[in-house]
Amino acid sequence: MTIYDVSEKAGVSIATVSRVLNGSDNVSPQTRQKVLDVIEAYDYTPNVFACGLGLNSMNTIGILCADASDLYSANAIYNIEQELHKNNYTCILCCTGYKLADRQKYLNLLVNQKVDSVILVGSTFIYDNEAENEYIREAAKEIPVLMLNADYDCENVYCGLCDDFKSTLQATNFILDKGISDILYLYNSKSYSAMRKLSGYQSALVQRGLPLRMEYMQYFPGNHADLTSVADFLSELDGTLRYGAVIAGDDNLAIGAMKFAQKKGLSIPRDLSIIGCNNSILSRCCEPELTTIDNCLETLCHHIVKTLIGILNNSEMPQKVIFSGELIKRGTTL
Amino acid sequence: MTIYDVSEKAGVSIATVSRVLNGSDNVSPQTRQKVLDVIEAYDYTPNVFACGLGLNSMNTIGILCADASDLYSANAIYNIEQELHKNNYTCILCCTGYKLADRQKYLNLLVNQKVDSVILVGSTFIYDNEAENEYIREAAKEIPVLMLNADYDCENVYCGLCDDFKSTLQATNFILDKGISDILYLYNSKSYSAMRKLSGYQSALVQRGLPLRMEYMQYFPGNHADLTSVADFLSELDGTLRYGAVIAGDDNLAIGAMKFAQKKGLSIPRDLSIIGCNNSILSRCCEPELTTIDNCLETLCHHIVKTLIGILNNSEMPQKVIFSGELIKRGTTL
Repeated sequence: MTIYDVSEKAGVSIATVSRVLNGSDNVSPQTRQKVLDVIEAYDYTPNVFACGLGLNSMNTIGILCADASDLYSANAIYNIEQELHKNNYTCILCCTGYKLADRQKYLNLLVNQKVDSVILVGSTFIYDNEAENEYIREAAKEIPVLMLNADYDCENVYCGLCDDFKSTLQATNFILDKGISDILYLYNSKSYSAMRKLSGYQSALVQRGLPLRMEYMQYFPGNHADLTSVADFLSELDGTLRYGAVIAGDDNLAIGAMKFAQKKGLSIPRDLSIIGCNNSILSRCCEPELTTIDNCLETLCHHIVKTLIGILNNSEMPQKVIFSGELIKRGTTL
Repeated sequence: MTIYDVSEKAGVSIATVSRVLNGSDNVSPQTRQKVLDVIEAYDYTPNVFACGLGLNSMNTIGILCADASDLYSANAIYNIEQELHKNNYTCILCCTGYKLADRQKYLNLLVNQKVDSVILVGSTFIYDNEAENEYIREAAKEIPVLMLNADYDCENVYCGLCDDFKSTLQATNFILDKGISDILYLYNSKSYSAMRKLSGYQSALVQRGLPLRMEYMQYFPGNHADLTSVADFLSELDGTLRYGAVIAGDDNLAIGAMKFAQKKGLSIPRDLSIIGCNNSILSRCCEPELTTIDNCLETLCHHIVKTLIGILNNSEMPQKVIFSGELIKRGTTL
């Protein structure tokens, strides 16, 4: 049984059936009763999206992430999903990859599907070239856009962030305080968040009057899960650089550095200190366990959903909230 | 602009607009042109779900998993999503948790939303008590149901599986061939897949005339990510059991066993051999790297999507396909 059958049997238009389903006042009591009788007689279950057609709401939130197999994203999706379901929202997840054209396509699709809001997971959704962020501004004209760990100023865009600058600054200071000043910084992304981390590392050095040496900031954009290629990358650098510590923008990279140290016979942390970022499960798999930055992902996810529910209930919500990360000290640092 | 406005301006019913949007033949050329003119004049973008209203199809697939933060599920979702998008399908992901009532709720929701099909990720969706599988049989009356690594006989249910029995049997034989016959088996789930693995372990012993000792099959149902609690669990067992190898139903458990061995000062693999399962990234983070069973998740995901597309195109597709896993030999075994 479809909405067309109900319309036919009740002798009313589809628009009227839709109005009844959506509880609109714009239907006479007699017509309403006729429609409800047919619905009851034929045990018709309305298509949830068909209901949404008239209401402009179907209690559905779109989630966009670049790659759901990335550990940070997977945990974010899990936490956001749990919180949304507690609040009776359903999620549509789209894994967009990193190309702007694909992201535009998905975001358009979700907006056209009349989702109530979208959540973009990760700062890679913001581009340096402001013209490329048009797709977000366009979406925000239609529905609230929430960004997890990205920073973007625009009406109807709400951001929850971890202060990646501060936590990397603190991690770098922690190493400098041990008397180690030759610190290799490894990163695998040029997202906003990744650039803030790099900037935290640089500021710690500058604040102590230490030189910024480009060769100590190595960009390694390979597959995030390929630990061997990180180790190989460091082996190739070997001989040209001397360093007593590695700070990495991601736990995967840090564990790749551990692989390199183990292959070379270096003792961790005696010969080499290593700090990762994300406090992922990987940081507890290695031996010694990895010192890492906990960027409060769970807190961020709870905040994003709380903000979203507030907006949808017409409450005034803050457009930007910044949380602080924390250095979790384990066996790879002195 | 909504479908209602198009209908009003073209002077036709909503059903007619929907028929035009869906490319139905049941509209006169003149009427079709009237509708298309309005759509063009007002630059109307149809709501994708509204289009689906008439077609019984909105090119959307529902994916259900218990927990998207579980590494196996996260990788499955990623691979399935990528393949579906190549075929122009959108996904709705629901993380259901493990309770039957929640699963029923989500599956009903998806069926009512007229998704084209659903994919259930993991064998935990099948219950031992056949009455509890009613929710799957009900859904299969409406739409094709695909199951990733679960086995269920029912019309309109299609399964793609890895032979977990055979791969665990082979892993156990690999250890037995090294002359080690005291093998602890660790598992953290009682899903169909988990029981098949346990059964593979048991069969290997039985085939060699070795005794099945219940105390050598330990069920540890804690949080899959909590490595410390696995290590603590083994510490508590210590003294009561002697074993030269651990085979675990999941890489997390195997790495927990490595933590225990390291704490106790055992050398891996000299004093203790360890085999995990899933060939997850965790298996490459630890030192030595973990010998583990690769249960061909990517192949399974590709197969599931290929089957789904075939069914939706009215091709005859096999209801059950079983793939073989492979033991990846690394540093934790002799």
